[in-house]
Amino acid sequence: MDFQMGCDGLKQIAVLGHGVVGSGVMEVLEKNRGLIEKRVGSQVEVRYILDRRQFPGLPYSGRFVTDFGVIRDDPAVEAVVEVLGGLEPAFSYARESLLAGKSVITSNKELVAQKGDVLLALAREKGAHFLFEASVGGAIPVIEPMHRCLDANRIQQVAGILNGTTNFILTKMLREGCTFQDALELAQRLGYAERDPSADVEGLDACRKICILASLAFGSHFYPEDVPTRGIAGVKPRDAAYAARWGGAVKLIARARRAAGGRVALEVSPMLVPASSLLWGVGDVNNAVQVTGDMAGDVIFYGRGAGKLPTASAVVSDVITALTQEGPAPSLFWGPADPGLLLPPSEAPCQGYFRVTGLDREGLELFFPGAFFLEPLEQGEEALITAPATQGELDAAQRAAEAAGGRVLSRFPVL
Amino acid sequence: MDFQMGCDGLKQIAVLGHGVVGSGVMEVLEKNRGLIEKRVGSQVEVRYILDRRQFPGLPYSGRFVTDFGVIRDDPAVEAVVEVLGGLEPAFSYARESLLAGKSVITSNKELVAQKGDVLLALAREKGAHFLFEASVGGAIPVIEPMHRCLDANRIQQVAGILNGTTNFILTKMLREGCTFQDALELAQRLGYAERDPSADVEGLDACRKICILASLAFGSHFYPEDVPTRGIAGVKPRDAAYAARWGGAVKLIARARRAAGGRVALEVSPMLVPASSLLWGVGDVNNAVQVTGDMAGDVIFYGRGAGKLPTASAVVSDVITALTQEGPAPSLFWGPADPGLLLPPSEAPCQGYFRVTGLDREGLELFFPGAFFLEPLEQGEEALITAPATQGELDAAQRAAEAAGGRVLSRFPVL
Repeated sequence: MDFQMGCDGLKQIAVLGHGVVGSGVMEVLEKNRGLIEKRVGSQVEVRYILDRRQFPGLPYSGRFVTDFGVIRDDPAVEAVVEVLGGLEPAFSYARESLLAGKSVITSNKELVAQKGDVLLALAREKGAHFLFEASVGGAIPVIEPMHRCLDANRIQQVAGILNGTTNFILTKMLREGCTFQDALELAQRLGYAERDPSADVEGLDACRKICILASLAFGSHFYPEDVPTRGIAGVKPRDAAYAARWGGAVKLIARARRAAGGRVALEVSPMLVPASSLLWGVGDVNNAVQVTGDMAGDVIFYGRGAGKLPTASAVVSDVITALTQEGPAPSLFWGPADPGLLLPPSEAPCQGYFRVTGLDREGLELFFPGAFFLEPLEQGEEALITAPATQGELDAAQRAAEAAGGRVLSRFPVL
Repeated sequence: MDFQMGCDGLKQIAVLGHGVVGSGVMEVLEKNRGLIEKRVGSQVEVRYILDRRQFPGLPYSGRFVTDFGVIRDDPAVEAVVEVLGGLEPAFSYARESLLAGKSVITSNKELVAQKGDVLLALAREKGAHFLFEASVGGAIPVIEPMHRCLDANRIQQVAGILNGTTNFILTKMLREGCTFQDALELAQRLGYAERDPSADVEGLDACRKICILASLAFGSHFYPEDVPTRGIAGVKPRDAAYAARWGGAVKLIARARRAAGGRVALEVSPMLVPASSLLWGVGDVNNAVQVTGDMAGDVIFYGRGAGKLPTASAVVSDVITALTQEGPAPSLFWGPADPGLLLPPSEAPCQGYFRVTGLDREGLELFFPGAFFLEPLEQGEEALITAPATQGELDAAQRAAEAAGGRVLSRFPVL
């Protein structure tokens, strides 16, 4: 990559927030200043950093401001990096920046998952960029290759391991037989999980990310609150053992599929992933996104999904795009939510894994015809993989089995 | 992905060659015409197809021509798709197209590996595109995410499994104990290997691809003939067994690394890949490219690396780019070869795997101090992993061991 353009002039940006990602952005800009400015074709200066806190002693301590209006009203600021996290004031700041004709770059998945359609429409109207590569998969390029490189395809499915914390916990449970609680504590000790891990563990983080990818793939906004979301707290080492016996693994999968009638099925849940899937081998804190195009087949984007400098480098790459490309790419866009587009969960095609006590194999076969039974790991327990069905049919079968004295200890979809 | 631009007007292209990829391009354009034209914002018509052969009975039989001059001299043709393969006449046609101000899209790795710098410079001069996403990894997005999404990074290494045929053969040898000859015959029966498999088996195909990726990553053209290249014919099932015992696998790896003094070490060879590497699990005909950035760390692009429609869909995506983006991206560029940039192979840092007879462990330790010995699979044979060294030091150690009566049966680098 060689850039023979001159480095004349100066381009000014602002960074909202000086937390982990914000300070990482400063570090990437400083460490790779030479190559970044070559790529932009001019000097790049962070004119303002917005943070309520004081950071004395930094080489750029003089650039901190506490009033967003200073940034909004400075016409020299071409692009605003929003790395505050959370919905407000991030949304107001992003909106006002775009209204002022400034491009906005964010790593904030909550913001994109809740307000992506609004901000994309505003960016288009103003001829500015709204870019968010870092909101999914950290440094792993996903958004850009999806809308630029797979644009001769009709996307059929996006499925991924989108949360590194839960993937680490499940890897520990499956490979080393840890309990959920022990694995979570280890993740916290290693700095992979936050003190309050609920957004990761309950699947909300993965849900926000799959909503962003589904919106991009299918052209309409999808809201996290409309997506059936289950976290990993219910996964037991015993389930991992049955999954291994079956020749697979239990992973927290976020999935969006084009279903019958062009509707879209969306779901976040622990799933049984067969060893034949490219996602099966994705362990530890890694993330992977599998995109299936009607022409390209499966392609996978893979790597560490988080981390200060990786995430910051994805943000800075978007800054380079915002400062060098005329206007937003028409392919990076989606419209408002279309309530009729989402398939009701009960109609979603589904194959299920059930672990049951209280009924024997013959009894269970009545409710789950055509099921494949795994060799039991304990007397009185049965584990089975159902024949293909819909979610609603499996719900009904479960209710019937429970009415007959069965007790469902675990139930997950099969990928 | 929604595109609210109108579909006014007509954009005309030409396709050079109606073989596997060329007919695939026609199929993708036809099958996904609606979404492609939405993305381009106008109708897209293949005005001419260049082929010496006749294809009667096709809906577009009337568009075949045998004289390239017709295409070159028609100012209505905005972009030319070159899928002839080989260096000539592909290079002349690409050059003349660019000289006439037309963008060129190619899947031809030989063309890019031999003439990329010349064609990129000409494209830049003429304000036209020279695009080649399909030349590496089929439908897997690699070129575009490398130069667009990792542009805040100094690339440290690009390493990949870039040839599906040889990866299939090695997978069969390692997992099922097939001989090389049996695995090759199976690959031919399944249509994965050509009747003359030499470009795949001898590593030339992977070498061309790593030269393209290295040129993009390090900014100067690298020629395949300057790259030490070994194919897979020397890999024995026994080596696969030792690799498994060590906890890894033998893979044909193409690798470009930034070494001391900013120079670049390039190599294609079977290598021992540890299970901790993300490339270890890449089996069958899949390809994977691992890019290591100084900020992003490792990211991997993964999928099927070949196939008619996948490759054609990558070509069509480049056509969309050529027809919609003003002028070439400054980041998709490299300069002429810089002979001083390539590290002499003997100076390349290297850890080696050796399989030896004729010397016992004590004897071998004299020549390979600090080596790690694997448990022998046969009496009189030793397999070892050397301490980190340079290629030249390992050459000298091998010569000394041979002079002392050792016989080296296999030798590969460790990734």
